[in-house]
Amino acid sequence: MDRKYDVITLGEILLRLSTPINGRLAQGDTLMKHLGGAELNIASEIGQLGLNTAIISKIPTNLLAAFIKNQLNASRVSENYLIEDHSDDSRVGIYYYEYGSYPRKPRVVYDRKHSSINNIEISDVPQTLFYNTRLFHTSGITLGLGGKAQDFAIHCIKEFKKQGTLISFDVNYRSNLWTGEEARKCIETILPYVDIFFCSEDTARLTFGKTGTINEIQKSFCEEYPISVVASTERTVITPKKHNFTSIIYSAKNDTYYRENPYNNIDVVDRIGSGDAYVSGALYGYLKHGDCQKALEYGNAMAAIKHSVIGDMVFTDLEEIDSIIKQHKNTSGYQSEMNR
Amino acid sequence: MDRKYDVITLGEILLRLSTPINGRLAQGDTLMKHLGGAELNIASEIGQLGLNTAIISKIPTNLLAAFIKNQLNASRVSENYLIEDHSDDSRVGIYYYEYGSYPRKPRVVYDRKHSSINNIEISDVPQTLFYNTRLFHTSGITLGLGGKAQDFAIHCIKEFKKQGTLISFDVNYRSNLWTGEEARKCIETILPYVDIFFCSEDTARLTFGKTGTINEIQKSFCEEYPISVVASTERTVITPKKHNFTSIIYSAKNDTYYRENPYNNIDVVDRIGSGDAYVSGALYGYLKHGDCQKALEYGNAMAAIKHSVIGDMVFTDLEEIDSIIKQHKNTSGYQSEMNR
Amino acid sequence: MDRKYDVITLGEILLRLSTPINGRLAQGDTLMKHLGGAELNIASEIGQLGLNTAIISKIPTNLLAAFIKNQLNASRVSENYLIEDHSDDSRVGIYYYEYGSYPRKPRVVYDRKHSSINNIEISDVPQTLFYNTRLFHTSGITLGLGGKAQDFAIHCIKEFKKQGTLISFDVNYRSNLWTGEEARKCIETILPYVDIFFCSEDTARLTFGKTGTINEIQKSFCEEYPISVVASTERTVITPKKHNFTSIIYSAKNDTYYRENPYNNIDVVDRIGSGDAYVSGALYGYLKHGDCQKALEYGNAMAAIKHSVIGDMVFTDLEEIDSIIKQHKNTSGYQSEMNR
Amino acid sequence: MDRKYDVITLGEILLRLSTPINGRLAQGDTLMKHLGGAELNIASEIGQLGLNTAIISKIPTNLLAAFIKNQLNASRVSENYLIEDHSDDSRVGIYYYEYGSYPRKPRVVYDRKHSSINNIEISDVPQTLFYNTRLFHTSGITLGLGGKAQDFAIHCIKEFKKQGTLISFDVNYRSNLWTGEEARKCIETILPYVDIFFCSEDTARLTFGKTGTINEIQKSFCEEYPISVVASTERTVITPKKHNFTSIIYSAKNDTYYRENPYNNIDVVDRIGSGDAYVSGALYGYLKHGDCQKALEYGNAMAAIKHSVIGDMVFTDLEEIDSIIKQHKNTSGYQSEMNR
Amino acid sequence: MDRKYDVITLGEILLRLSTPINGRLAQGDTLMKHLGGAELNIASEIGQLGLNTAIISKIPTNLLAAFIKNQLNASRVSENYLIEDHSDDSRVGIYYYEYGSYPRKPRVVYDRKHSSINNIEISDVPQTLFYNTRLFHTSGITLGLGGKAQDFAIHCIKEFKKQGTLISFDVNYRSNLWTGEEARKCIETILPYVDIFFCSEDTARLTFGKTGTINEIQKSFCEEYPISVVASTERTVITPKKHNFTSIIYSAKNDTYYRENPYNNIDVVDRIGSGDAYVSGALYGYLKHGDCQKALEYGNAMAAIKHSVIGDMVFTDLEEIDSIIKQHKNTSGYQSEMNR
Amino acid sequence: MDRKYDVITLGEILLRLSTPINGRLAQGDTLMKHLGGAELNIASEIGQLGLNTAIISKIPTNLLAAFIKNQLNASRVSENYLIEDHSDDSRVGIYYYEYGSYPRKPRVVYDRKHSSINNIEISDVPQTLFYNTRLFHTSGITLGLGGKAQDFAIHCIKEFKKQGTLISFDVNYRSNLWTGEEARKCIETILPYVDIFFCSEDTARLTFGKTGTINEIQKSFCEEYPISVVASTERTVITPKKHNFTSIIYSAKNDTYYRENPYNNIDVVDRIGSGDAYVSGALYGYLKHGDCQKALEYGNAMAAIKHSVIGDMVFTDLEEIDSIIKQHKNTSGYQSEMNR
Repeated sequence: MDRKYDVITLGEILLRLSTPINGRLAQGDTLMKHLGGAELNIASEIGQLGLNTAIISKIPTNLLAAFIKNQLNASRVSENYLIEDHSDDSRVGIYYYEYGSYPRKPRVVYDRKHSSINNIEISDVPQTLFYNTRLFHTSGITLGLGGKAQDFAIHCIKEFKKQGTLISFDVNYRSNLWTGEEARKCIETILPYVDIFFCSEDTARLTFGKTGTINEIQKSFCEEYPISVVASTERTVITPKKHNFTSIIYSAKNDTYYRENPYNNIDVVDRIGSGDAYVSGALYGYLKHGDCQKALEYGNAMAAIKHSVIGDMVFTDLEEIDSIIKQHKNTSGYQSEMNR
Repeated sequence: MDRKYDVITLGEILLRLSTPINGRLAQGDTLMKHLGGAELNIASEIGQLGLNTAIISKIPTNLLAAFIKNQLNASRVSENYLIEDHSDDSRVGIYYYEYGSYPRKPRVVYDRKHSSINNIEISDVPQTLFYNTRLFHTSGITLGLGGKAQDFAIHCIKEFKKQGTLISFDVNYRSNLWTGEEARKCIETILPYVDIFFCSEDTARLTFGKTGTINEIQKSFCEEYPISVVASTERTVITPKKHNFTSIIYSAKNDTYYRENPYNNIDVVDRIGSGDAYVSGALYGYLKHGDCQKALEYGNAMAAIKHSVIGDMVFTDLEEIDSIIKQHKNTSGYQSEMNR
Repeated sequence: MDRKYDVITLGEILLRLSTPINGRLAQGDTLMKHLGGAELNIASEIGQLGLNTAIISKIPTNLLAAFIKNQLNASRVSENYLIEDHSDDSRVGIYYYEYGSYPRKPRVVYDRKHSSINNIEISDVPQTLFYNTRLFHTSGITLGLGGKAQDFAIHCIKEFKKQGTLISFDVNYRSNLWTGEEARKCIETILPYVDIFFCSEDTARLTFGKTGTINEIQKSFCEEYPISVVASTERTVITPKKHNFTSIIYSAKNDTYYRENPYNNIDVVDRIGSGDAYVSGALYGYLKHGDCQKALEYGNAMAAIKHSVIGDMVFTDLEEIDSIIKQHKNTSGYQSEMNR
Repeated sequence: MDRKYDVITLGEILLRLSTPINGRLAQGDTLMKHLGGAELNIASEIGQLGLNTAIISKIPTNLLAAFIKNQLNASRVSENYLIEDHSDDSRVGIYYYEYGSYPRKPRVVYDRKHSSINNIEISDVPQTLFYNTRLFHTSGITLGLGGKAQDFAIHCIKEFKKQGTLISFDVNYRSNLWTGEEARKCIETILPYVDIFFCSEDTARLTFGKTGTINEIQKSFCEEYPISVVASTERTVITPKKHNFTSIIYSAKNDTYYRENPYNNIDVVDRIGSGDAYVSGALYGYLKHGDCQKALEYGNAMAAIKHSVIGDMVFTDLEEIDSIIKQHKNTSGYQSEMNR
Repeated sequence: MDRKYDVITLGEILLRLSTPINGRLAQGDTLMKHLGGAELNIASEIGQLGLNTAIISKIPTNLLAAFIKNQLNASRVSENYLIEDHSDDSRVGIYYYEYGSYPRKPRVVYDRKHSSINNIEISDVPQTLFYNTRLFHTSGITLGLGGKAQDFAIHCIKEFKKQGTLISFDVNYRSNLWTGEEARKCIETILPYVDIFFCSEDTARLTFGKTGTINEIQKSFCEEYPISVVASTERTVITPKKHNFTSIIYSAKNDTYYRENPYNNIDVVDRIGSGDAYVSGALYGYLKHGDCQKALEYGNAMAAIKHSVIGDMVFTDLEEIDSIIKQHKNTSGYQSEMNR
Repeated sequence: MDRKYDVITLGEILLRLSTPINGRLAQGDTLMKHLGGAELNIASEIGQLGLNTAIISKIPTNLLAAFIKNQLNASRVSENYLIEDHSDDSRVGIYYYEYGSYPRKPRVVYDRKHSSINNIEISDVPQTLFYNTRLFHTSGITLGLGGKAQDFAIHCIKEFKKQGTLISFDVNYRSNLWTGEEARKCIETILPYVDIFFCSEDTARLTFGKTGTINEIQKSFCEEYPISVVASTERTVITPKKHNFTSIIYSAKNDTYYRENPYNNIDVVDRIGSGDAYVSGALYGYLKHGDCQKALEYGNAMAAIKHSVIGDMVFTDLEEIDSIIKQHKNTSGYQSEMNR
């Protein structure tokens, strides 16, 4: 079967407006303008690594549409499934971001209610969509939007599954969208369709009521549902500007856990989107190499490098990520500080 | 009667996000952050000229509230009637602005639907509010929001009027909010309460179906309704970066028309808000000096200087405006290019 | 015949480094970073208007490649014919641009010698390339590079022509690349293959020794060579910041001259690339509508709007250009200053 | 007794001109523009926390006055006691600040001589001033200006004291204003009037010749003078970009020392003004809650958060500070990295 | 006689702090940092044209000294006569500049009182200074500082004159430094020593009570005093952003008036310092070519180009100025819009 | 013997274009513009410390020449031996720099091929050049350019040596210019002329095949060649933003090793050029004080402070470096955090 895309994601495309680093929303006269949104980040980053990607989303037809489309194309994400919202009510969801420095936490203000994706309809997309990709990814953020967006997402999961598409899902719990209980109930209805499941240890415990070690938790998901792969990131916040990051992946097929040494003392320029970068790397590694070890390595490397870049997503390419992985593994030998 | 405020306005406080001059929304990574909104501009500018002002509006309690409150205070506008919206749905309305250069027009994208002011309730404000000011001002923009905001505005007009407050109203027709017919019908219901009426010649013709000269049009409003003063701005667009500006005011009391020579060849840095600046100056002149000639001079000077400043409102003071008026009248004598 | 691309161009992709407006290269610590190059501009702009485009060029594989590829994709230009230069010697050509204000002229410093395109080889591209487009465009700049780039360009012109592809050529004379005599000799060898010929009146006189009226000059090219269409821009520099712009097109098929009123008093933010924008619009109009009148209107509108945008190329879309054309034709009726 | 203000401070308002972070005064073409001055910072910060504040200062009537007044109002500081200096000689004092990075120290250049506050006269303020506040604060900086400013400050201390106002004083020793010996002599004349005394351990030893532990030193001040509260900050400079910060407060009334764990590994964006922020928090806690424990907690939290913000003063509100205190106390439980 | 310098000037070196163009001092958080001062501008610009120059001035030894010295060297002005002010009181004078747009005038705030130059002493410079240059230049600004600076300037004029040095003087009347009457009295005492006299028509009338045509006025100065050359600039302000500029020079030796067509429609980016640029060009032309015609041409060209550059002085070189002069004279022939 | 310069260096002057810190070359629209090049850095920094320096280099005559000359003069480097390249082919070499954050390494793209220095000829400089300085410095970068630049450099080394000039050489191995083997062979031909030799331990081992301790390595160079002084820097990269730095110098004359405690936890703003700053300080200390201990201290201090400054070279002065050395030695006593 020859499918046009390797990955199609579904989610909201947000305008991200952030203060200059060290600045505050209450002061100054400048904002940085980027795009964000978990599923956009993932489609973009997998596209940069070289696979074919598309995003299903709905956006207004105003001047901001050009900004969005330019960015999608720059990241090699197809705009074929970008649905135009011609309603009077159309809007791009926004989030404002203020960078923190200890002891001042970073802060987020969401203004995403009533955005165009909340008007998405099954009739907005052609049925052929569901035949067209190897993997479909969405997250708990899209489900958490509720209403039509949730209905649409569940519809997509089922339809893609019918066509033998791999279903990837990241819980990505956001307390400002729904309660843990609402999230659990909804997600449990789609878990029977999921192949690759991203869930942090905290979320597993708090939202799904899991107990035991992380290994036990991961395995339990695969025992309850026909999930093949469970991936959980592990982050240690040393200071807001220094994090350690790694992950653990469980493969049900060979009942194996994959781990590697953390990236330690990561310089945190911008932490937002590092979880999405992890998903990007992991899906890339899995799809390209069919291998959880590669998923682990690409996931960790993408997440680690994301912290060094301003904005929701990293702009990188395969060559850079491969060199980061190589350097990370080379723990004993000589490492150049910079090549010149 | 001793009233605490000279002017209270009612209207939406918008976040204005504009491209750097000559930049486009579809490109770049920076936006300028300002506040806007016709009634905010007017309260701020009258406050800067030295009268006591307040604004009735409704805003969220998130991080943007601090930005709004800092700006209100910086402009000497009381935050006493700023209503906090604690609902989940609360949001600040936004407009995006892209500067133009001939033949590329400036463009505006509004994202103001569902903003907090649309939830405003009569019970949000104390009844004492209506005893507390010499003049109340609102505009067709607030009425055009429809729903609760429109109801609230009409309630205010009637309540303030009962207390002998002067009612000022600027048509400020926006085709993206309502049709001309909707506007006409609604505005005609409040014209019986209006004392000072701002209406451009174009709007008078297109929306109210007026005919004849501008003089005849102005007078006709006072004949149909108990309006005391009608003010109409006159703008000539030479190029998008050069405008001429003046106005004509009709006073029903003494059946007199007030005019002065236009400000010619105004350097247009940012044209947005020049109509509001006109209202500010006119109301200041009228309230401070009780005189339509002063209203005319302050209105024209405020509007003219507004064009030279980035953002929705001018930051100025009485001394600067007085010197601009003096210089404008001094058409024959020697004018220094700069004082040093 | 089903061809994948509407337009393929051939030319150098340059890094454009310009001072902030009003700044000088000899001072300050900031430069603006854009891409430029006549054929890149044309491919990008036609891509933005909705046709399928690609560019043939050769670039290094270093970090700048990512910048170039992101921009190509953002402009919907295919990177399929972007040739990687793996040699040690590979480099991106540069031009530095300093904005002027009367009486200080804008100034350009070229640093494009030895850039990767000068190593382009016929073996770098697949033979299938030549079957794949409706129109091929290149310019006198590419020929003026001399050496392998010139050989490659002439080879392309002949091979594309064999496949029935329309050949478009813009003289774009640059005295820093070659002498007028060198240019004339070289261009005369390719004119027998050219279908659409862009040549300004000045260049026709100075380089090709033409005499008579512009009408006579245009016709004479079609009499000497099997050229179908000759287009000549007409620019009047009122001041460095105010230009008038229009053009005249001659169609040999129906022996007709096409003209329209100039865009007058254009606000010149950045004049570079307005000639390329003209070619973009003219080719778009010609290919889309098969009509010299449309070529004229789109060419003039694209050139006019280009002046309002910083950088080598305009970022726009069909809707905006159509509204500019409509507004330009509407010389008598009411024109809104801004829509809101 | 009903007093209009909670806190009135007396001190110079300085224009602070700082290089971009990592830049040097000797290079570049940009400076950041802020206001500073210990007593301005304190009035502003207490105002932001919700108490009524005013500042006594003297400034020119030129264009900078508008900048100063806008900022005062934005921070909710009354401009009622801002004295206009109409003399030819009037000027705003300046300090230039260059950020450091180890081993390059930050550097300050003061240009505050001859500024308007040095012309302050007792006759500049109404006698009613002294009846109007619960607490008066000034510092050794104001005394160190010498001349009329020193005389005025001493006069204020005595007059406020007469009205039963709490007198707060921060030694804030500046070696570029006076010698330690001059400072000691002058300050000893006002200590009999002081209720709340801010003095670091170093200054106590070097300037006042104190010996013993910090506990003994604090107590000794209360034994020699009728001081109620002595507060001393404790800062550990780990690196110029990482500090630990806490303080110790001694209350003579109940002969008790108040301490808490330091804020460790504070990210130092801008260290200037953190001492003032401490005073702000401590006075807020003391006035609002009448409690040295609260003074300690608010003082430490305000000082800690100040380091994260560019400029002399922090822009914050009570909600943010309360959350920082809560998070700081929560040393064992789960702490979210960011709320979303 | 072999003299080391062609021109030595005497005057204050000021720090110029200006708002971003279109910004206001009362808003924003950024200032542009430049150096200014009439005699610094002149020494720098003549240095850039290729003659040897030095400036006599007095500056503090703080961090700003490095900025000043870097700039002097960058402009090829010798720092040999820069006197260090080691006093506690030392400071660099400042002026704040806010750009205007009609009808908002540009505004200047001076803060130059008590600056280091006001402490200049005859003993600060070596006697050999007076043997070392072909021409000495100072202005009415330096005299207007009064006190020691005035005494020093008069001393210099007399001492340089004794050594056969040409004395150049620009009235440069500033009403914020002294009255017209004070200026006249003081300047009349030095006119007997002056060889080259710069005085605008307005100043001649208002300050020196001259009447008649500009020709008569210029000649009258040479009749009253042993002045060889009188130069008067002629500026027409069309709009604040469009000026015409030319000058008229009278040579007493051959009783001739020199004129040329004005530079019309100059794009005014920054008008400050254009008078100084005129003096620079005129002195350069006179010293290099011994010719009032050259003085006129270089003076006008330098003044004209200055308007196009942000800051007090133009950064240029002889080649650029020569091309501007050539282009200005070429009123009939073909003029390229830009060379490339 | 009276020589005009203390130090003359020979090397390429590069334009350095770097991303804003935390930005990427593939994104954004701004670059920072600086000059770089090892020998330029060294001449500039020694000039700033107070010795007379010049640089031998070759540059185009275009607009960038003014930028280069302004910078040279600002750093007190003579432009007397700056050779103008009038060829069509002239260009300034460039390097692009992208700042890194762990785990993203900083990256450099060189575009220095075919630059003007590669056309340097012995006939470009006067023979008197070789009589005119106390010390001549060049590096392996200049030799690594190969061709005419290498020939010229070897010629200079021999000619200067003939005149009794000290010869200083820094290996500065760049793998993108030549192989280790090529470097070794070439450098061995000039080592017989070298007096002061800068070579890191890594380079000594990898390129020169040295073994043993660093002490043994240093001594071995002096045994094989008539080298007087060998200096080797020692850097420990804790994280990309924290380095330790010191060095070890061996003096053959008194067979002594000089060391001092490292500067630990240096805040790395910009690491580029810290090796050159070391050479600058070491040569300054050696020439000024004739003492390897001083060479060590100035070298280490200059290298340490360089890390705190954006750009290739530090802008500093002797007073600042002396205070850094003093503070570094004062390991036990009290250290102020900042002087004010």
